[in-house]
Amino acid sequence: MLTMFGVRVCSGWTGCWAVLRVRPLHSLTGITVAQIDEEVAKLLQLKAQLGGDDGKKQFVLKTPKGTRDYSPKQMAIREKVFNTIISCFKRHGAETIDTPVFELKETLTGKYGEDSKLIYDLKDQGGELLSLRYDLTVPFARYLAMSKITNIKRYHIAKVYRRDNPAMTRGRYREFYQCDFDIAGQYDAMIPDAECLKIVHEILSELELGDFRIKVNDRRILDGMFAVCGVPDDKFRTICSTVDKLDKMSWEEVKKEMVGEKGLSEDVADQIGVYVAMQGGMDLAESLLQDQRLCGNKQANAGLQDIKQLFSYLQILRVTDKVVFDLSLARGLDYYTGIIYEAVLTQAGVVAVPPEGQNNAAGESVSVGSVAGGGRYDGLVGMFDPKGRKVPCVGVSIGIERIFSIMEQKAEASAEKIRTTEVQVMVASAQKNLLEERLKLVTELWNAGIKAELMYKKNPKLLSQLQHCEESGIPLVAILGEQELKDGVVKLRVVATREEVDVSRLDLIHEIRSRTQQEEQ
Amino acid sequence: MLTMFGVRVCSGWTGCWAVLRVRPLHSLTGITVAQIDEEVAKLLQLKAQLGGDDGKKQFVLKTPKGTRDYSPKQMAIREKVFNTIISCFKRHGAETIDTPVFELKETLTGKYGEDSKLIYDLKDQGGELLSLRYDLTVPFARYLAMSKITNIKRYHIAKVYRRDNPAMTRGRYREFYQCDFDIAGQYDAMIPDAECLKIVHEILSELELGDFRIKVNDRRILDGMFAVCGVPDDKFRTICSTVDKLDKMSWEEVKKEMVGEKGLSEDVADQIGVYVAMQGGMDLAESLLQDQRLCGNKQANAGLQDIKQLFSYLQILRVTDKVVFDLSLARGLDYYTGIIYEAVLTQAGVVAVPPEGQNNAAGESVSVGSVAGGGRYDGLVGMFDPKGRKVPCVGVSIGIERIFSIMEQKAEASAEKIRTTEVQVMVASAQKNLLEERLKLVTELWNAGIKAELMYKKNPKLLSQLQHCEESGIPLVAILGEQELKDGVVKLRVVATREEVDVSRLDLIHEIRSRTQQEEQ
Repeated sequence: MLTMFGVRVCSGWTGCWAVLRVRPLHSLTGITVAQIDEEVAKLLQLKAQLGGDDGKKQFVLKTPKGTRDYSPKQMAIREKVFNTIISCFKRHGAETIDTPVFELKETLTGKYGEDSKLIYDLKDQGGELLSLRYDLTVPFARYLAMSKITNIKRYHIAKVYRRDNPAMTRGRYREFYQCDFDIAGQYDAMIPDAECLKIVHEILSELELGDFRIKVNDRRILDGMFAVCGVPDDKFRTICSTVDKLDKMSWEEVKKEMVGEKGLSEDVADQIGVYVAMQGGMDLAESLLQDQRLCGNKQANAGLQDIKQLFSYLQILRVTDKVVFDLSLARGLDYYTGIIYEAVLTQAGVVAVPPEGQNNAAGESVSVGSVAGGGRYDGLVGMFDPKGRKVPCVGVSIGIERIFSIMEQKAEASAEKIRTTEVQVMVASAQKNLLEERLKLVTELWNAGIKAELMYKKNPKLLSQLQHCEESGIPLVAILGEQELKDGVVKLRVVATREEVDVSRLDLIHEIRSRTQQEEQ
Repeated sequence: MLTMFGVRVCSGWTGCWAVLRVRPLHSLTGITVAQIDEEVAKLLQLKAQLGGDDGKKQFVLKTPKGTRDYSPKQMAIREKVFNTIISCFKRHGAETIDTPVFELKETLTGKYGEDSKLIYDLKDQGGELLSLRYDLTVPFARYLAMSKITNIKRYHIAKVYRRDNPAMTRGRYREFYQCDFDIAGQYDAMIPDAECLKIVHEILSELELGDFRIKVNDRRILDGMFAVCGVPDDKFRTICSTVDKLDKMSWEEVKKEMVGEKGLSEDVADQIGVYVAMQGGMDLAESLLQDQRLCGNKQANAGLQDIKQLFSYLQILRVTDKVVFDLSLARGLDYYTGIIYEAVLTQAGVVAVPPEGQNNAAGESVSVGSVAGGGRYDGLVGMFDPKGRKVPCVGVSIGIERIFSIMEQKAEASAEKIRTTEVQVMVASAQKNLLEERLKLVTELWNAGIKAELMYKKNPKLLSQLQHCEESGIPLVAILGEQELKDGVVKLRVVATREEVDVSRLDLIHEIRSRTQQEEQ
């Protein structure tokens, strides 16, 4: 955050004076030259960011819009979250693959419906036309078709790119990670689908993000519902994206869009309104299977049969406590063909900011948004296969950025200090001219596999060496002095307790290992 | 590879006959309809790749030029290599950061000299002009300046992008990983520099890639050498890049370029020739410090003093066996200001392909190319700081793609099978209608943290379940049958030995853990 003085500041010492009105002038009492220098530097940086006005091209020191750097502390949190997720994927027997960050432009064409406008294209510098990947699902399907793989269970954790409106405080970026788990192959109905939901349940439980709900629906039920309500065939997709807004908008607003913008009749919209208000479990699937009108539609009937089968497996997998069959769940992407699902955190307050551009009635429970989603896409691989051979797929994508945001907020709030290195011991000295001895000792430790460091100074002060240990959480200090060298020992200091013991050089590695073992685990 | 029949093939059944002359017609004896279908599909695919001729747009199923997918097996190798490298970086106390895959275009401008033409730009879709990162060093410097960090020891492993001529069989891609370790901060001379070389030594030793050599030089020695030999100031950089070719070209060829293309006099080139032939260690540094003419140049003198100091530390760090002071080492990048280094594998035969476009005399020892490189760049951060404040930096980049290539070749050559999952046990059944029981058991195992899987079929054959275990290296099978369910046991089968024991359901988790523990380590 920039703080500025309400003072005429000499901008770049060119004699051009600018009046800045952030703080009143009287706050200048007691200001030092160094403080002024610092403020001037900030102002010049701000000017540079604004583009400058002196004709000289000013360099803007920033990351591209919608992106961010990860600091060591953020990386430590990220690593922890990834480890939890990867452990779960591995527990379920998944392999992993990787694909290039860009694809041929045409690989992405026609896969994302209206969202295609958010794809980043590369400049035509001669050669192929390329685009940055928009998700990991389309590259996965391209990979399967290209490698002629007909069954695989894989996870893929990588960054994807969308020229979206960023809302970075809520974890919405233009560059962001996706963590995808997918099962491809011709299998019996709903078994892999149920495992995907089990995985979402495991991951969200283990990350301890608070309570959550997994909404489930089926693209075929939606389509069947639209058909029996009288939506014209060519409006299924656009009405589907309107229904998708029900998690952010009231039914009245959604209905208004259906009738006003999309040209449905009031009657048709009201019929849809009855269905999309329905939520339940196995019971709802069973009662809708009694709905003659809906089940007269082949698509809807097949979808409902699958939902019923799915819930019977979910009961055995012990995850029905969080799963809801919700007819308002739509999901925007074109490629889904069957079951779809989305997990939302239900504990308001974890992320208190309400979704952008909407008016939440005060006191209303605020959905903190989707943290995972996915579904079945049986046609996507076939779009890439020269012969159109289909490979049925189902998968889930964990919305990791929002999870990072929550974990970061939790870390900020908690007193617990996050370590950004794993250093076990610092090789230090209280006396001068012992750099070579320190280097010799740290080499012995490195060669024995001990995580160790030393200060890159010939004669560092003991205090600054100890301070560095305190700040970065290094538990032990191996202190060398003339006397210790004569005696063939090292003074081993425990940073937390300030306890010091002389340890023989021969026992040092063993001693460090046993004293830091507990921490390792 | 496409194989084709020398036969009139009905292209797309449109009645248009094309004659293909790859194999003679008589090779068609005994061809089946299925084989013809397969060949037709291949031909149509080939046609699609050629762009098609029927007016209909044909889709090309490939990754962009110079990029590749990583299969699960390649990912397993990649993970192993990364683990070795990351362990080393962590042992030396490094934190890690991440930066966006693209930067503002101007962030990369003026940092790479002639290589700037290889930068990938993004299309101008409104908003900022962006480019894909070319390395991790410039984003690191931008990060330091932006975050006002004056000292940090960090590693960064991520992909970078260069519109270079790919040579994928030798591990040269347009998208490739860099593994960078850098030390930023104002420290005493050559201590962090020596640690960087220690790290290269550790990593290349641990990866067991065969013998290697780390060449060391100093940008200031090169510049001083050019000055005393009579190279005009404005030709330092271009002559530097010519010298850089000495690892791939003979001195005669390099001299020809200096004199012919770059306009040096023969005499000046010959003087350079004397220096760039020199190789040694501490001794060479000491003897050059006696060279009155070279040491009359302040730059060269400072560089030589540092090389001498460096070698004294390298002796203590026990890495001088692999390090050579080599006056022909130049390195192309503009931003280096001091020590530079490059590691090459010296064992011919590991990668037998000679570097592109050059004539190696038969029997000559072929350098398999650089696998790590780096140096000191004290000015780069200052280029980003609004006040030009410098942060001295030194670092090393591990050329991981070439290492992957070598490891892949080794894996191909060895009989050892690479596992791509960590599954401990497969939940199977020999009888029908036990899907629910299998699901129940696998849920118990997952919830206990056991890595387990089951086949997604209602009634899979026992043989296919066992085959899957053989193929993917799963060590145990938990077999359920009516009898086992009655007895409250599971038949645990050891895949390798075919031994089977009945284990009580209560002891199963413990039994699986203890039987797969050894493997885990």
